[in-house]
Amino acid sequence: MHADVRSLTEHRAAALALAAPLPAVDVLLDDADGLVLAHDLVTDEPLPRWDNSAMDGYAVRQADVTELPATLRVVADLPAGSADEPLVTPGTAARIMTGAPVPTGADTIVPVEATDAGTGTVVVREAPPAGTHLRRAGEDAVPGDVVVAAGTLLGPAAIAAVASLGRPVVRAHRRPRVAVVSTGDELVAPGTPLRRGQIPDSNSWLLAAAVREAGGIPVRFGPVPDDVAVLRELLAGLDVDAIVTSGGVSVGAYDVVKAALADEPDVEFVSVAVQPGKPQGLGRLPGGTPIWTLPGNPVSSFASFEMFVRPAILRMRGLRDVERPTRQAVTDEGWTTPPGRAQLMPVRWVGPDRVVRATARGSGSHLVARLALAEGLAVIPAEIDRVAAGDRVTVLKVSP
Amino acid sequence: MHADVRSLTEHRAAALALAAPLPAVDVLLDDADGLVLAHDLVTDEPLPRWDNSAMDGYAVRQADVTELPATLRVVADLPAGSADEPLVTPGTAARIMTGAPVPTGADTIVPVEATDAGTGTVVVREAPPAGTHLRRAGEDAVPGDVVVAAGTLLGPAAIAAVASLGRPVVRAHRRPRVAVVSTGDELVAPGTPLRRGQIPDSNSWLLAAAVREAGGIPVRFGPVPDDVAVLRELLAGLDVDAIVTSGGVSVGAYDVVKAALADEPDVEFVSVAVQPGKPQGLGRLPGGTPIWTLPGNPVSSFASFEMFVRPAILRMRGLRDVERPTRQAVTDEGWTTPPGRAQLMPVRWVGPDRVVRATARGSGSHLVARLALAEGLAVIPAEIDRVAAGDRVTVLKVSP
Repeated sequence: MHADVRSLTEHRAAALALAAPLPAVDVLLDDADGLVLAHDLVTDEPLPRWDNSAMDGYAVRQADVTELPATLRVVADLPAGSADEPLVTPGTAARIMTGAPVPTGADTIVPVEATDAGTGTVVVREAPPAGTHLRRAGEDAVPGDVVVAAGTLLGPAAIAAVASLGRPVVRAHRRPRVAVVSTGDELVAPGTPLRRGQIPDSNSWLLAAAVREAGGIPVRFGPVPDDVAVLRELLAGLDVDAIVTSGGVSVGAYDVVKAALADEPDVEFVSVAVQPGKPQGLGRLPGGTPIWTLPGNPVSSFASFEMFVRPAILRMRGLRDVERPTRQAVTDEGWTTPPGRAQLMPVRWVGPDRVVRATARGSGSHLVARLALAEGLAVIPAEIDRVAAGDRVTVLKVSP
Repeated sequence: MHADVRSLTEHRAAALALAAPLPAVDVLLDDADGLVLAHDLVTDEPLPRWDNSAMDGYAVRQADVTELPATLRVVADLPAGSADEPLVTPGTAARIMTGAPVPTGADTIVPVEATDAGTGTVVVREAPPAGTHLRRAGEDAVPGDVVVAAGTLLGPAAIAAVASLGRPVVRAHRRPRVAVVSTGDELVAPGTPLRRGQIPDSNSWLLAAAVREAGGIPVRFGPVPDDVAVLRELLAGLDVDAIVTSGGVSVGAYDVVKAALADEPDVEFVSVAVQPGKPQGLGRLPGGTPIWTLPGNPVSSFASFEMFVRPAILRMRGLRDVERPTRQAVTDEGWTTPPGRAQLMPVRWVGPDRVVRATARGSGSHLVARLALAEGLAVIPAEIDRVAAGDRVTVLKVSP
């Protein structure tokens, strides 16, 4: 029934290969936060643009303050933002605020605390060496410098750098709109009274939140019944950048996702040597939209999204590093792992470098309540058959 | 001019003391992502709700499959979601899909791969021990269990757990709306042609992005001129949960924020023994709204937000842990630090545990372009006067 069995690594590569950075668009700075810059941002001006004062104080000539105290005539008052260009001649000073351009003739900034703060004349009591408290033009960047590189996530500091270059608009990759479709006749919307055999849909919320956490824009559909015609119509009508489904990909008699996509030439269903998450599908719909079809057990959906979909969403956003941070930890307990298959075990921290299974009463892929405690996924290689208490494991950090 | 000099730790405590968790509101699950749960979510049902199958296969009686192969009559077909309650009597089996309730009389699930997949009769070739592939009611949670605890950040797994309890609505703390006001006559909106003395406003974008990254909703105002009346009117008209300003808090002649708030009985201006970020103000406006007034140099604003405002926003959201993760690193270069003041130095990683200064050409608090490279803030205690290459430093991780 499965044409192909793949390793976790192979399927991950196939899943990621479906994704490419989305087109770049011009966005206002107010909307750029969290997007990824699509081009190197090069400054064509020096930063700062002119020599300016690092302190509130007085711009003076060093030669005038070699003997102290010195009394100087105040010839100008330069608040930040002043366009004045006074000349500081021998025996004079300009009152100056932080950030104001240093007037011609002055080579030293005396902080206000070292003076009598006079306005007509000023008495300088202490003077720093020439050049002190003076920010030089180009100290931060010179023309031609790449201030923010293509592929940078536009967080607070990068946005501030863009603004400081005077750019109100940047070109950034737009965020992917990702449809999330959970399937299953047993599923009802949370809050609906349950009859025997029914359970609340949780996967559409799980995956929508995971898409958002990955920086995509989720478009949630769920629950969708096990009806091939309904699912086909839904998929055909979507106008999104990518699609993630859950459920209906196994060997059962009612596997609606497999049935709905059976005739798609560019979609394949495979077995992946991983637990949970063995039955997987992926490919492209006729219009080219990537689709990943995940198994329906909540823990399987969660782990499969982490492994196969999240890196693809990050790549669509334009990020180059699509990996979660990992951390080495020691497990406080042992468990068995399936022979010949990698294992993805939800874990939680019990110390700086110590973990236990999050799903404490077992490792079943249906344990959605316990999954809420998961802070990481321990990735156990296929060669390992048993994890013992005290073993070192590699943990993907899935919570901040 | 400064009534008070405080340590970094003292001012941080004062800044955080202004914040309390915002009221809880009912939110739909679709809108709950990223909010913080305001109450313990206790299940009043077992999860799973009934014994159900972990595999696609056949529900059988163990006694019927002790001798193999065994041929059984298929008396029912139980897809997931089926409400049927057939009885599995001796010599019979029910075809069953993953998640469907196990019918009365059956005690064993035979995976379809171990059978001939028959529909009228089924030939069982291998049978697991009784109870295998059977998920027991209550295995995941029993009535009375706290499934998601108050104070939990509602990420994908927690949202899925809420959904699986059948709750379409949760009570969560609402996100704080935080006004961001950058002041300075020298500031113009990015894109405006600059005359001498002017620079583009970057702080309002810096702080708005930082508020959003902290989980707040920024309301950005900037640049605002150095006009006390204008600023007072703006502050008086705000309908927000908190206010952050930048600039106008130093010892200069035009310090608009200090002047505008000089008569506020619950706002104080202090010197903090930290570099950058020495001049600080904080308190409450007459209506009780917390306000933090940060210095205007971009690096000072950035570091001050990290230290004083971000933890407060996290607390307003209802989070209990308001600290950034820290990491020990070795610095590849040395620098001087101001005697008697703590230092917050923007750094970037050059190896797994090695950092250099992000603002490579200096450590000035105006180096906004270089700040874009910052991945962390090295926190150097006040007792240290000099950092040498090879020293260990503690780094707050400010990027993911």
